[in-house]
Amino acid sequence: MDGTMAAAAANGNGSLANTRGKPIKCKAAVAWGPGEPLALEEVEVAPPGRLEVRVKVLFTSICHTDLSAWKGENEMQRKFPRIFGHEAAGVVESVGEGVEDLVPGDHVVPIFTGECRECVYCKSDKTNLCGTYRVNPLKSTMVSDNGTRFSVVDRSGVRRPVYHFLNTSTFTEYTVLDAACAVKINPKAPLEKMYLLSCGISTGVGAAWNTANVSKGSTVAVFGLGSIGLAVAEGARLRGAARIIGVDINPEKFTKGKEMGVTDFIDSKACDKPVHEVIREMTDGGVDYSFECTGINDVLREAFGWGLTVVLGIHATPKMMPLHPMELFDGRRITGCVLGDFKGKSQLPDLIDKCINGEVNINFDGFITHKMPFLDINKAFKLLEDGKSLRCLLNL
Amino acid sequence: MDGTMAAAAANGNGSLANTRGKPIKCKAAVAWGPGEPLALEEVEVAPPGRLEVRVKVLFTSICHTDLSAWKGENEMQRKFPRIFGHEAAGVVESVGEGVEDLVPGDHVVPIFTGECRECVYCKSDKTNLCGTYRVNPLKSTMVSDNGTRFSVVDRSGVRRPVYHFLNTSTFTEYTVLDAACAVKINPKAPLEKMYLLSCGISTGVGAAWNTANVSKGSTVAVFGLGSIGLAVAEGARLRGAARIIGVDINPEKFTKGKEMGVTDFIDSKACDKPVHEVIREMTDGGVDYSFECTGINDVLREAFGWGLTVVLGIHATPKMMPLHPMELFDGRRITGCVLGDFKGKSQLPDLIDKCINGEVNINFDGFITHKMPFLDINKAFKLLEDGKSLRCLLNL
Repeated sequence: MDGTMAAAAANGNGSLANTRGKPIKCKAAVAWGPGEPLALEEVEVAPPGRLEVRVKVLFTSICHTDLSAWKGENEMQRKFPRIFGHEAAGVVESVGEGVEDLVPGDHVVPIFTGECRECVYCKSDKTNLCGTYRVNPLKSTMVSDNGTRFSVVDRSGVRRPVYHFLNTSTFTEYTVLDAACAVKINPKAPLEKMYLLSCGISTGVGAAWNTANVSKGSTVAVFGLGSIGLAVAEGARLRGAARIIGVDINPEKFTKGKEMGVTDFIDSKACDKPVHEVIREMTDGGVDYSFECTGINDVLREAFGWGLTVVLGIHATPKMMPLHPMELFDGRRITGCVLGDFKGKSQLPDLIDKCINGEVNINFDGFITHKMPFLDINKAFKLLEDGKSLRCLLNL
Repeated sequence: MDGTMAAAAANGNGSLANTRGKPIKCKAAVAWGPGEPLALEEVEVAPPGRLEVRVKVLFTSICHTDLSAWKGENEMQRKFPRIFGHEAAGVVESVGEGVEDLVPGDHVVPIFTGECRECVYCKSDKTNLCGTYRVNPLKSTMVSDNGTRFSVVDRSGVRRPVYHFLNTSTFTEYTVLDAACAVKINPKAPLEKMYLLSCGISTGVGAAWNTANVSKGSTVAVFGLGSIGLAVAEGARLRGAARIIGVDINPEKFTKGKEMGVTDFIDSKACDKPVHEVIREMTDGGVDYSFECTGINDVLREAFGWGLTVVLGIHATPKMMPLHPMELFDGRRITGCVLGDFKGKSQLPDLIDKCINGEVNINFDGFITHKMPFLDINKAFKLLEDGKSLRCLLNL
């Protein structure tokens, strides 16, 4: 229960009371340009604006979306200097005007797609995307005033704004979030595991549960055995899927996959025919559910099988989907999902409570392959880039 | 109850008993080449083969798929001489070896996508496509022996095979179907209406009920107000949709649309901005369900809105879907459906029983805008081509 203890310390009446309403100077990993090593800078974090909260980040980790944005793979989304990071857990330091559901000391998990609970989208049961705070990779400022809450002094001595990322920006000791993007969680939950619900586990498990509604005894194919793919497998396993076929170009991932409940493996590089044919033969026609977790168009083509295809990978290419409309007639559906179709603020606390009381047994530890201090964040980036880690827990 | 009476006459012990096991000579509308007027020829219809039935067709009508195939819009699907037609109702004349669920005299509705009830697909509740008898626009012969059951004497006096179409070929007084493609229906049901369940009504109403599961109070957009589009609207109306927005380039269709329960209309040619923007403004964000019933890629692009998009139109173009994978992330789903996701033999009889006992009130008559003798089939083609008819009932 390290997380809880750390949170309790951060929540002491001493330090936090002194910072309310004032800027906070702290360490952050600033990206100055595409692909440049992150620089640990002293940044200034402004107090939260209207409907915002300032959060002391205790744990964070890196996801492929951070990696892709850091490299600047999609030119339209480049914006520097910037603080990346969207998987984290922490404690509310102070709240801005109009925030009613959070108070200093609350344990929170940031979410990259918010929930205002008031718009037509939030009130619909058909989507988890909020009209105001939905994920937007082009967005780099806060909703309330189009400004940033971070600033840094650059090499020429000038203080300049540091841009936000995915409604979260968690590679910093303190961050400012829209309250709609901060999920208040049970303080009994260990924060050093809960950060996985910011993205990886929620996205994958939710894709299997909410988006696909994987049924007992069904067959599943997962393309790409990174954290998202394995979280899909975890969701499918918990639903009682009969077969979970993992596909990857890197057979080294099969060991971990086996530990995590994947039942069959296809090394797509070693196949002498298209993967969809291999799957069709293995399953007497095709899998019931197929999950594309790589962001590669050719893989999407292979993943588009019989039944429902769920797209989870981030496709940075401007290329259209390589599918013909008539292919949809063959009993096929395709959809994407964001944050596993969970309405973050409404539904994740309940999931966490079920994890605490043992009703749901998600294997959080299985995803945490490495742990290191926040200061070693560039090493953690390298591990992910080389396909050697799932999630590396960074301790702030 | 004309249909029932006609059926009873056809089922008299006299004429039918004499034809069993023998070829039948009868009139058929034969297409000799793409776009050529159909020729009313005397064809010979062979007795049904293994797992096949021979059916006396009493009523038939024309759908856009017939029109498109007759014109040869998709070159790969050209195959002449051929008998088109896939919406019909009739009476079983005789059955082939191994047929257990049909006997002479049974009232049947042909379906273009069959149901064997034995394959892995038929046993799955996730698809209505049969592994053996699924719709296949490239198919032009029977499953059992790859042969045809029709033949005709051509201009040079040679008897040659006439190809089948969509598992049905109903523009003929007698046809041969796989038993898997013949739905046995309640003899109390009027055949001169039931033929609409071969395709149009089943496809549209089923798309609203089974594929989209349209909910009470929801919003729906229908692109293309032909029979399929209006059948979608009918399905949505019966489910209690709050708004049904009809989109067409031909405002003449709005009068009929209004009669059939469409609540709002968009004349897409008269819009000064993209239709999806017009819909977004009308509905505070977008409709819950969108149905593409035109087969035009640019329309598919406009139809791809918030919520679920169902593709019903036949896209003859080889062009891929004009959608980017990331667009799926915006809370969107896209799917196609065949025969409204009804398992024809298992589920249509029950729907018909509900129509008979008044539990379900589908407006069959609203779809039948014209009636004429079968011999006038070329006039009926012209009416449909000119957008002047929905369904023209052809009486054989």
